[in-house]
Amino acid sequence: MKKVAVVAAGQTPFGTHNGETMKTLFVKAFEDALQHLENEIDFQKTEDVYIGNLGSGGSQLGNPAALLVEHIGLNGVSARRVENACASSGFAFRDAVQSIRNGADLAIAGGVEIMNDLPSSHQRYWLGVSGDTEWERTAGATFAGIYALLARRHMHEYGTPREALAQIAVKNHKNAVDNPVAQFRKAVTLDRVLSAPIVANPLGLFDCCPTSDGASVAILASEEYARKLTDEPIWVEGSGAASDYLAIHDRPSLTTFEATKRATHQVFKQSDLSLSDIDFVEVHDCFTIAELLAIEDIGFFEKGSAAQAILDGETSLNGSIPVNASGGLKAKGHPLGATGTGQIAELYKQLRGKAGKRQISDASIGLAHNVGGSGATCAMHILRRDS
Amino acid sequence: MKKVAVVAAGQTPFGTHNGETMKTLFVKAFEDALQHLENEIDFQKTEDVYIGNLGSGGSQLGNPAALLVEHIGLNGVSARRVENACASSGFAFRDAVQSIRNGADLAIAGGVEIMNDLPSSHQRYWLGVSGDTEWERTAGATFAGIYALLARRHMHEYGTPREALAQIAVKNHKNAVDNPVAQFRKAVTLDRVLSAPIVANPLGLFDCCPTSDGASVAILASEEYARKLTDEPIWVEGSGAASDYLAIHDRPSLTTFEATKRATHQVFKQSDLSLSDIDFVEVHDCFTIAELLAIEDIGFFEKGSAAQAILDGETSLNGSIPVNASGGLKAKGHPLGATGTGQIAELYKQLRGKAGKRQISDASIGLAHNVGGSGATCAMHILRRDS
Repeated sequence: MKKVAVVAAGQTPFGTHNGETMKTLFVKAFEDALQHLENEIDFQKTEDVYIGNLGSGGSQLGNPAALLVEHIGLNGVSARRVENACASSGFAFRDAVQSIRNGADLAIAGGVEIMNDLPSSHQRYWLGVSGDTEWERTAGATFAGIYALLARRHMHEYGTPREALAQIAVKNHKNAVDNPVAQFRKAVTLDRVLSAPIVANPLGLFDCCPTSDGASVAILASEEYARKLTDEPIWVEGSGAASDYLAIHDRPSLTTFEATKRATHQVFKQSDLSLSDIDFVEVHDCFTIAELLAIEDIGFFEKGSAAQAILDGETSLNGSIPVNASGGLKAKGHPLGATGTGQIAELYKQLRGKAGKRQISDASIGLAHNVGGSGATCAMHILRRDS
Repeated sequence: MKKVAVVAAGQTPFGTHNGETMKTLFVKAFEDALQHLENEIDFQKTEDVYIGNLGSGGSQLGNPAALLVEHIGLNGVSARRVENACASSGFAFRDAVQSIRNGADLAIAGGVEIMNDLPSSHQRYWLGVSGDTEWERTAGATFAGIYALLARRHMHEYGTPREALAQIAVKNHKNAVDNPVAQFRKAVTLDRVLSAPIVANPLGLFDCCPTSDGASVAILASEEYARKLTDEPIWVEGSGAASDYLAIHDRPSLTTFEATKRATHQVFKQSDLSLSDIDFVEVHDCFTIAELLAIEDIGFFEKGSAAQAILDGETSLNGSIPVNASGGLKAKGHPLGATGTGQIAELYKQLRGKAGKRQISDASIGLAHNVGGSGATCAMHILRRDS
């Protein structure tokens, strides 16, 4: 299998971008990625572009791919939108990896989402469509409601304390303070999280990720071309992806995301690495319970034991396995289609030692975990710095 | 580059499917494809599924991929939606080809669209979003209006007679009579086409494709696995894909689709074939003028000369290059996201000699041409029967 490099990755700040369109945000993310390239790149070598986007906001409502490649100066290049709800650009990245393995010199993966130009009724609509329509959405189940069910069940089965979920929010807000592209750059106390208004019991306001605009881009290259472009290529060591029943009532367990477990199995099968080789991880924490499920399902902690590990600080920046050094979806922000390659941009920065005050020491191997729906799809990637 | 086989392909009839959902239609297309497999297939070998869909109708409004693979019995398999307007499943097919070239034993491409459960205002909405929103849609330019502009310009530059466009409709309706999955299985006379109500001058009712529901599926395999599954694999000889400016005002010419020309260049670069080797072609005739542009841009006829060739019968079933033996989008139907792999299903049937009364004699190499927007994206594939 051919080696694949990420030669550059970048993103806009995640947050509220009044007056921006999909085009302007995507261009800014692309320009941010280009900053990291030391040598001139020949974009005519680009064989395919994959753009994650869930839909709706930002002027172009469908068929955005051709328009977006035109605006980054690549008019003519093959491009398509990839949609898997909140895992859209995780899958876009996977498909770009396949393009390079297939022989392309250059491929681009990215994502873009504008949510803040919609009235709140439309926000509910677009978020709602990512869950099962017939059994969940039309029965009134929101994503906060569904994740609250998962949290309650986890508490019931494993005695998981409310404080462990709250501590995830505290940690991720703390990490985001030092991330210039994060939406919420302010710390919160455990008490504030615990006393916040309830969104869906037991999840309060600080257990839920925000509504965000943003874009992100990763530029991938073949080994041969990557060596010409940079002295510090970041290698894609593995790509895993899987699905699960869309509606949670079909699943045998509410406390395990089978798609995450399957993707984990795949991603390690592609590499010669094991879980203990992973130095840090960006996981899909759309709600605090989602981070807890993720680190158990990937296998960093036995099922039922992550809560104590979180309370013990094992997932903090200087813990045994730093989780969401970027601030995660919770505090960095979650512009749906832009989140997956946004995680790649964070891995890229950490692996090149460019993460500033939130830099994880000796970060050489990182893992990104991106989920669509309430666990219906999962794309997972391991990136490694040149050793 | 590894060889890629289409081991089975099928589709639902295109037309109005009241009471069906995306799930039921997609399952029917999958079952139709399975009919063509002589030997038992191990779907656990499927590494990735790519599903073309533009949006909206049929109950699941977003994030459909996991749901659809669950319903064809492949719960757990990596899947994503691919969206490029009306070229969605042409690109889904391209991405599945890349998956097999990348080492997978099995991959699935398909498409599904339900348009008839929407009120007409929503139909306009979903069709409209595929054009440029800021410069075309919000200025009132519909797709019929845009293609009418292209037709007028072609008439102006090359003296193209209205009758040549009408003759395309006559031919495609005639071909569809013998296609059991076509939406309009009735012939129309030249006089009827010419005297039909005008939709956007010069295009009349019979120059425009219908509103359709439908689904289509292609099952792709590696050479090794294909040899175990069937004695009659159909080989993918080349895949080409490209984009162009989304808004037509940005293009240097209104009578050439550059995306089609670029995709043509690519698809032949991947094979050892030339244009004269192509026995028949399915092109994207959302409007009659689109078929004329396509056969000129691909190169079967010099720019400005296709009209006479059409009037001379060269594109009919027993002509020098049969075009849209299936009836095309015009008469077979055009369920947006299902059209691209629907073309592949037609090529598959023709190449296996299973096209019944519309069978093209000695069909051994076919080309499929799928366009998104008014020429903004193009996916093109050449398929060849085992010789």
